[in-house]
Amino acid sequence: MAQSSRKINMADVARAAGVSMATASRALNNDYGVAEATRRRVLAVAEELSYVVSPEASRLAGGATGRVAVVVPHISRWFFATLLEGLESVLRAADLDVLLYHVDGIEDRHDFFHRLPARRKVDAVVVLAFPVGEEEQRRLELMGVTIVAAGGQHAPYPNVCIDDETAARQAMDHLLFLGHRRIAMIAAVDPDQPDEVQPSGRSNAYYAALRDAGIPVDEQLVETVNWGGTKGADAMAKLLSLREPPTAVYAHSDEVALGAVRTLRRAGLRIPEDVSVIGIDDHPVAELTDLTTVRQPVREQGELAGRMLLRILRGEETEHDVVVPTQLVIRGSTAPPRS
Amino acid sequence: MAQSSRKINMADVARAAGVSMATASRALNNDYGVAEATRRRVLAVAEELSYVVSPEASRLAGGATGRVAVVVPHISRWFFATLLEGLESVLRAADLDVLLYHVDGIEDRHDFFHRLPARRKVDAVVVLAFPVGEEEQRRLELMGVTIVAAGGQHAPYPNVCIDDETAARQAMDHLLFLGHRRIAMIAAVDPDQPDEVQPSGRSNAYYAALRDAGIPVDEQLVETVNWGGTKGADAMAKLLSLREPPTAVYAHSDEVALGAVRTLRRAGLRIPEDVSVIGIDDHPVAELTDLTTVRQPVREQGELAGRMLLRILRGEETEHDVVVPTQLVIRGSTAPPRS
Repeated sequence: MAQSSRKINMADVARAAGVSMATASRALNNDYGVAEATRRRVLAVAEELSYVVSPEASRLAGGATGRVAVVVPHISRWFFATLLEGLESVLRAADLDVLLYHVDGIEDRHDFFHRLPARRKVDAVVVLAFPVGEEEQRRLELMGVTIVAAGGQHAPYPNVCIDDETAARQAMDHLLFLGHRRIAMIAAVDPDQPDEVQPSGRSNAYYAALRDAGIPVDEQLVETVNWGGTKGADAMAKLLSLREPPTAVYAHSDEVALGAVRTLRRAGLRIPEDVSVIGIDDHPVAELTDLTTVRQPVREQGELAGRMLLRILRGEETEHDVVVPTQLVIRGSTAPPRS
Repeated sequence: MAQSSRKINMADVARAAGVSMATASRALNNDYGVAEATRRRVLAVAEELSYVVSPEASRLAGGATGRVAVVVPHISRWFFATLLEGLESVLRAADLDVLLYHVDGIEDRHDFFHRLPARRKVDAVVVLAFPVGEEEQRRLELMGVTIVAAGGQHAPYPNVCIDDETAARQAMDHLLFLGHRRIAMIAAVDPDQPDEVQPSGRSNAYYAALRDAGIPVDEQLVETVNWGGTKGADAMAKLLSLREPPTAVYAHSDEVALGAVRTLRRAGLRIPEDVSVIGIDDHPVAELTDLTTVRQPVREQGELAGRMLLRILRGEETEHDVVVPTQLVIRGSTAPPRS
C-alpha cells in the first residue's frame, strides 16, 4: 500500500473522484443524498489515496452521529438476539452503526436512559421488547433523540409488535377446538420489569377463551413463573401434583413449554396422548422437538422497526403502530384429550 | 429541569464539582485514571447543570474513540449471542461502547474489514468465532486498531477459546467407556466460511478416539452437514438407512444432536435404550431435553476476551491464548448399548 508523506485531505479525494467537495464530504460521511455509485467511487478513491476519514470532526457540524443505540434487556435469549439481527441488517444496509446496550434490570435501565442523551452519542434509540418510562421518553425527545420500539407491546412511540392477546387466543382456541376443558396456563413474567408494565395480553386471552367457551376458571390451573425453561418444568410439577391435573397446557412461550414437556416425560406421561402442550414463538427448537406453537415473525419485527426508523430519520411519514400477524403451527404435541 | 440560558461549559462543571478542568474532562469523557466516586460526582454535577458532553470533540484530541467493534458471523444463534452478552458486559462496565457488526458471508466480511479501519470509528475489533485473514489483520494493525478474538480456534492475535479436540474427545471417550463400538459422527461446518479455515478439532478427535480404542473407521458412519438442528435430523435419517445403524451418535453441537434426537423419536426408537446421543455446548435447551453433552463456558469466553482487550488498551501485559476448560455433563441421552 503506497503511503504518501503529505497528509491527504478531502479536496484531494474530491478532485481525484471528479466530484464537488460537498459531495465528497457527504459520501465519506455516509450522509443521505449521494447516489450509491457516486458514494462507492468516492470511497474507492479515498481508499486508494489512503485518506483517513474523521467522521467525528465532520459530523459535529451536521449534528448527526450516524449511530443508533439499540437497547435490549437480554442479548443471549433467542427472541432478543433475533430481533437484533433483523434490526442490525437494515441499519447497516443504510450505513448506520449500531451501538449495543444491554440494560440488565430496572436500575441499570434507569441509569442508561439518564446518561445516554447527555453524551450525544446517537441519533436514535431502538428499544427491544421493554418499555420506556414517560420521563425517560421526554428526556430523549428533549435531546432530539428519536425513539422506535420492537417486540414489546403498545408504546407511545413508533412500535412494531405482535398482538399478544390474538396470539394467545389462537393457542387457546386450538386446545378448546380439540376438546380440552381442563386447560392449565403457565404464565411467564420478566423479574427485571416492574409489575405495572408486564404485558398482560397472553394471560387475558386465557380467561377470555375459557369464558367464551363457558368453562369456569380454576385458579389452581394457573401458574406464574419467570421466563425460562427450567421454571416451566417446576410449574408443570406443581400442576401434576393436583388431584385432577390438566389434560392440556398452554405456556406463554416455547421455552416455558419445553420445560413442561421435560417434566411430563420424566413422569412417564406421553405427549400428546396423555397431555397436550402448546407454546408461543416458534423458537427454532420448537421445530426440533415437534412442539405445537403460535409462530411470531421475530426477525421481521426487527427489520420493520429498522425501516420505520430510517423513514423517521429522513423526515418521512411512518406508521405509528405496526402489528405483525401470528399463526398456529400444528406439530406433534397437541391432540384431542382421551375420552 | 432548570435550563440556563447561557451555555454551560466544562469550566462551570469543574468548578461546581470541585475538581480540576483536566479531571472534569477525563471524567466526562470516560478516560481512565479517574476514581469512580469522582467520576460519578462530576457526572452528577454535569447532569444537574444540563451540561451536554460532546465526546467526539474532546476525543479527537486524544485519538481514542471509546468504541469497540464486535464482529459476529451470526447474532441470533445462542452461541454467538451468549459470547456477545459476556463481552458487552465487560466493555460497558469499563464505559466502552460496543458497535455491533454482523458480517454475513465471506464477501460481506471482506468488505467490512476493508472499510472499517479507514473510517477510524473504533479503537479495537473483537471478532467472535471466525477467523480474520492475514491481510485483514495487517490492515487493522497498520491503522492502530487492536484485535482480540473469542469463541473460535487458535488465532495469530489474543484469543479465548475452548480446545475443540479435547471437548470432542471427552464426548467420544464417554461413548467408548459405555461400551459403544459402532459410533456415528455428525460433523458440522459453517457454509459461510472457506474450507481451509473450518476448525477440524471436533472431527480429529473422533478419528483419534476410535484409533486409540482399536476400532476401524467406517466412513458410512460419518455425516457432514451445515450447522443447525434440521440438518442433524437429515443426517440421522441417512444413518438409520444403513444396514447396520450406529448404537451411538456423537454430534458436533447440541443443536445438531437435537435434530438427530427428533429423527430417532419419529422412527420410534428410544433414547438412550436403543441409541445414545451426545452433543457439545451445553446449550440451555440441552438441560430441557435431558441431552448428555460436553459443556463449554460461553459467556465466560466473551468476558475473558473483554478483560483481555481492556488490558491491551491500557498497555498492560496479557496472555496470548486463553483456553477455557470443558466438561462432560451426563444426562439422560446416553447409556451402555444393548448387549
